[in-house]
Amino acid sequence: MDIYNQIGELGVAGVTIPEEYGGAGLSYQDLCVVLSELAKSSVSYAVTLSVSTMSQSILAEFGNEEQKKKYLPALTSGEEIAAFALSESHSGSDAAALKTTAKKVEGGYILNGTKMWITSGGIAKTYIVMARTGEEGHKGISAFIVRDGAEGFSYGKKENKMGWKVSPTRELVFENCFVPEEDLLQTEGMGFKIALSALDRGRITIGSIAVGLAQRALDEAVKYALDRKQFNQAIFDFQGLQFMMTDMATEVECSRLLVEEAARNFDNGIKNQKVACMAKLKATDTAMKVTTDAVQVLGGVGYTSEYPVERFMRDAKVLQIVEGTNQIQKVVIGRCLKKEYAQ
Amino acid sequence: MDIYNQIGELGVAGVTIPEEYGGAGLSYQDLCVVLSELAKSSVSYAVTLSVSTMSQSILAEFGNEEQKKKYLPALTSGEEIAAFALSESHSGSDAAALKTTAKKVEGGYILNGTKMWITSGGIAKTYIVMARTGEEGHKGISAFIVRDGAEGFSYGKKENKMGWKVSPTRELVFENCFVPEEDLLQTEGMGFKIALSALDRGRITIGSIAVGLAQRALDEAVKYALDRKQFNQAIFDFQGLQFMMTDMATEVECSRLLVEEAARNFDNGIKNQKVACMAKLKATDTAMKVTTDAVQVLGGVGYTSEYPVERFMRDAKVLQIVEGTNQIQKVVIGRCLKKEYAQ
Amino acid sequence: MDIYNQIGELGVAGVTIPEEYGGAGLSYQDLCVVLSELAKSSVSYAVTLSVSTMSQSILAEFGNEEQKKKYLPALTSGEEIAAFALSESHSGSDAAALKTTAKKVEGGYILNGTKMWITSGGIAKTYIVMARTGEEGHKGISAFIVRDGAEGFSYGKKENKMGWKVSPTRELVFENCFVPEEDLLQTEGMGFKIALSALDRGRITIGSIAVGLAQRALDEAVKYALDRKQFNQAIFDFQGLQFMMTDMATEVECSRLLVEEAARNFDNGIKNQKVACMAKLKATDTAMKVTTDAVQVLGGVGYTSEYPVERFMRDAKVLQIVEGTNQIQKVVIGRCLKKEYAQ
Amino acid sequence: MDIYNQIGELGVAGVTIPEEYGGAGLSYQDLCVVLSELAKSSVSYAVTLSVSTMSQSILAEFGNEEQKKKYLPALTSGEEIAAFALSESHSGSDAAALKTTAKKVEGGYILNGTKMWITSGGIAKTYIVMARTGEEGHKGISAFIVRDGAEGFSYGKKENKMGWKVSPTRELVFENCFVPEEDLLQTEGMGFKIALSALDRGRITIGSIAVGLAQRALDEAVKYALDRKQFNQAIFDFQGLQFMMTDMATEVECSRLLVEEAARNFDNGIKNQKVACMAKLKATDTAMKVTTDAVQVLGGVGYTSEYPVERFMRDAKVLQIVEGTNQIQKVVIGRCLKKEYAQ
Repeated sequence: MDIYNQIGELGVAGVTIPEEYGGAGLSYQDLCVVLSELAKSSVSYAVTLSVSTMSQSILAEFGNEEQKKKYLPALTSGEEIAAFALSESHSGSDAAALKTTAKKVEGGYILNGTKMWITSGGIAKTYIVMARTGEEGHKGISAFIVRDGAEGFSYGKKENKMGWKVSPTRELVFENCFVPEEDLLQTEGMGFKIALSALDRGRITIGSIAVGLAQRALDEAVKYALDRKQFNQAIFDFQGLQFMMTDMATEVECSRLLVEEAARNFDNGIKNQKVACMAKLKATDTAMKVTTDAVQVLGGVGYTSEYPVERFMRDAKVLQIVEGTNQIQKVVIGRCLKKEYAQ
Repeated sequence: MDIYNQIGELGVAGVTIPEEYGGAGLSYQDLCVVLSELAKSSVSYAVTLSVSTMSQSILAEFGNEEQKKKYLPALTSGEEIAAFALSESHSGSDAAALKTTAKKVEGGYILNGTKMWITSGGIAKTYIVMARTGEEGHKGISAFIVRDGAEGFSYGKKENKMGWKVSPTRELVFENCFVPEEDLLQTEGMGFKIALSALDRGRITIGSIAVGLAQRALDEAVKYALDRKQFNQAIFDFQGLQFMMTDMATEVECSRLLVEEAARNFDNGIKNQKVACMAKLKATDTAMKVTTDAVQVLGGVGYTSEYPVERFMRDAKVLQIVEGTNQIQKVVIGRCLKKEYAQ
Repeated sequence: MDIYNQIGELGVAGVTIPEEYGGAGLSYQDLCVVLSELAKSSVSYAVTLSVSTMSQSILAEFGNEEQKKKYLPALTSGEEIAAFALSESHSGSDAAALKTTAKKVEGGYILNGTKMWITSGGIAKTYIVMARTGEEGHKGISAFIVRDGAEGFSYGKKENKMGWKVSPTRELVFENCFVPEEDLLQTEGMGFKIALSALDRGRITIGSIAVGLAQRALDEAVKYALDRKQFNQAIFDFQGLQFMMTDMATEVECSRLLVEEAARNFDNGIKNQKVACMAKLKATDTAMKVTTDAVQVLGGVGYTSEYPVERFMRDAKVLQIVEGTNQIQKVVIGRCLKKEYAQ
Repeated sequence: MDIYNQIGELGVAGVTIPEEYGGAGLSYQDLCVVLSELAKSSVSYAVTLSVSTMSQSILAEFGNEEQKKKYLPALTSGEEIAAFALSESHSGSDAAALKTTAKKVEGGYILNGTKMWITSGGIAKTYIVMARTGEEGHKGISAFIVRDGAEGFSYGKKENKMGWKVSPTRELVFENCFVPEEDLLQTEGMGFKIALSALDRGRITIGSIAVGLAQRALDEAVKYALDRKQFNQAIFDFQGLQFMMTDMATEVECSRLLVEEAARNFDNGIKNQKVACMAKLKATDTAMKVTTDAVQVLGGVGYTSEYPVERFMRDAKVLQIVEGTNQIQKVVIGRCLKKEYAQ
């Protein structure tokens, strides 16, 4: 948290949030630059910031004045972290199948169920929680603000992950947890729309984290290869290895441009889901490939914790999975293509 | 030529050439749009235009006032075509090893040698020809303007190519061909610098042609897949095939952004060889892959001349070879990386 | 036909057919060696032989004694060619949807319909034709022997293909074509089983053709690269290009082993559809990639008809499409995996 | 060690060693089966066994009768482990540049230097150590047997690796370590030949470990996909994901066949370095890709230690690096191709 507080002091804990709530009032393009740079040092911190910012955006866009004033300032200042709770054990890609219930009672709702795979679970103070208030499917879902410490709300199993070691991923357990009416976001049934809006943002921010991570891995690989000598020359000068690095550089450049394009569209109010999905897909696939190849360039030492590239490779993998697996991105791109060509 | 003349009538035969010489005075970004669009119908015409425009750019940048006034108007209007003659049988990637000689004589030069693989050879009227006036290596090379019909200048073997069928590729044979002094571009020894400047432009224009071609192939594939039914559903709805098309679309988008970035840099006077090489490399590799996959989507009929995709695939291959093979692009990218990280 | 007759004289026109019908009585492993070698020179001839042998195998396996004695000798000797007619305009991958009808009449059947994309159409004398005698779906299909010249049987449109130029691909048109009862293979309704047995064989033979083609393309590339000099050294010695060739060689080796494994299983009576599909998929994808890269190694000259590699590339593409597209192979492999792991 | 002793009790601690020294007297093909099976459970144990067996093979092939009798029985029985020490900080791929010295003294040699990245360092009792007795380059290298506990021989830094967690990798430090004359293998200067023979074996055994690991990852992925439901169906039935698994299966099959081919050649005394390098290259690249994709199939849970696939992915990476990086394999394949085609 100390380091995260420092991120807050740098003024980047709420980049895209309006200044009146303590944010920097900047664009998604700016946020992407911040996340990319942060990811060069630590994907874990970048992800924590990304999720917190996304959750703040939801509050800023869908919250009423009271909700915004109550929850945003502590988040934009970096004192607190926000998190987003959608996934459950049996509803990952099929998010609309979630089973956590929110039963209407006098003055509020009673939540029951378990959320899984929640980034910043346990360290966040404010959670946006999706729960079912109505019928099956996406129409019956509502979004609630739940605070750390609420009665009936506890933390479950902490995941032991391959990477993202500093960023906790944890279950949220709701056992007859009462949420007052004023912490419902919008109206009943608006939850899925809110979740989709979160995913629209998440694709771009995960994309920018992937770009920063891949760029850093490339940097490490090229520097090492220029420095390391074998057979009396820098290994960079072996063309076979060099071509591997030129390919890495080319793919990083592509990914960066795609993420920038997606962020620019978002900032300009152009709804282009296709490009956003492409950005997430391409940037994270590139990060996986480039970090794996970076370990190869460093060879044996790259496989040890003496150099950061093995961490980069472990951190990269889950980027292909979160905020919609890359297979789900393809499903959405396919849907967009179908619409486009049917016209 | 009739069709080419129509291109001239559309006002796009000299897109980037100043208006005082009959050009449209537009940017490389504009030229890229024109070439991409043209390539959607015919790579052959796009290449003819691309090479003619590149040759005009050389005249416009390195020619003196007289040369510009004499040669440009017929080219910018589309009445005539220009071509660029660098390659020889033993000097392809290693362009500086060329052997065609230009011996200084009273009032001019005598050219001897054979140029190979010359796009628009035989249909162009104005040729920029690289020949050796001095020492071995790149410093001894000069650039000349040679007109169709000059004594001692004839056309040799016409290549029977896999694609680019409408665009002739031919040998230029110089046997004691006299070129008057006023048709030397700049001064002796400036030829290689001029040739490199041509390649800087060529990378971007070939990239934009590749993007147009790949986009068209994608269009054909998606349209066919939406229309064609097997097992009682559109084959587009088979997810395995659909994912192939989403990958195609993603790579086309990347390539388009890279080429635009390279053109934007060029227009802004930012010398970024790395991005230009990446644009050429990525866009042409994408065109090869996407056109090959487009034939796959169409299946048997895609392999026949009833649909244009088999032509697209044949046209795509040479894009990976011309204006510096993609291996040469990697060599240059590698050189740029080395410089960048050595700083 | 002259060249094909010579193939017959070499004794390889009916490699796997029992000696009593004039065949060589050898194994599928032997046939694969023959086809691979032939494909190194000409995929067109290899395909003609492959299809004729497959059609003979059907006659040998499913024909009665009379049918075998009547039709096989002219085929095993190479005097005549056999062909296999399954595909129709609207039934490619979904073969069981075929619409050609065979109506039972006194003493035989009346065929009506059009077969498409028939290899050796027009030059073959004996055709195995699938037509519907019963209900919709695969159970209503029967297999007939139809001879060139039969009344009501004519040839339609000849496909203008990208490759396989020497092997004609043509429509077969049946207009009230009478086929005598004795030319029905087995009994009514057995057609689809016969067709599937043909595909089982076709996967292996197409795989072996792909291996031969890819090997030859590799040979051409390596030889050229060892011979061609640029920057004062053989281009083979540029490691970036060399690694491309080591990758090509590795994939060819893999493909060869897979096809051999599939043929060995077939010869040993081990029904392993999974490996057969993998062999077809892998070998043909490898052929496409390796031939495309071979053109790249040769550069500009590789794109012309002076060297055979551009032909190899054109010939390779359709291998990914015939005898079940590579997508269909994946569907079948997937089905096998499902069975395997469900046990 | 307990588990390793059990491996010994199973009789597989010295699979390829002659029975007279306690081994099983079996072939490399048999050893590959053992290693593949072991790798399905634990790459770490498989690697320990692989290196110990390789070191035993060196003793068996190059040791004299006394050396064999003295050192082999404890190794073939699985009571002890052997290790192989070649790499140093500045000589990885360029093994012949090693700097550890062995100075001839009365009755033996004095070793000085540090070996790096030694598998089983610290747990092995018998080490084959390469040190320089003569001139620079590969001719000055000799091979020694050094026992754990020898004076002047200590263990240095233990690597903190991304994977292979159970198999220690450690530095060996020699400070005036005396090695008696009878522990020299063969004669002075034979060390590099011995090292190359080790690599010939190592390529095949690492290949077989990679195949086992990849097969297990595929098994886990398919089983999970058949079991896991989203959108009301097993995720295996989403064709896009299924095709990913069919590709994984195809590449595993290829790799298995290549490794078997390499082992068969080795057993038959056929020196085919090209196929051995291809086997190592292809099998380990496949293991990397297949394990990475297996995590993708499992999604979020695959990224946690609840399932073994994240461990598989971490274990896979170093297979591309050890026993000659995959780039070095390509260099050797390239050299083989050159010889082959120069004939």
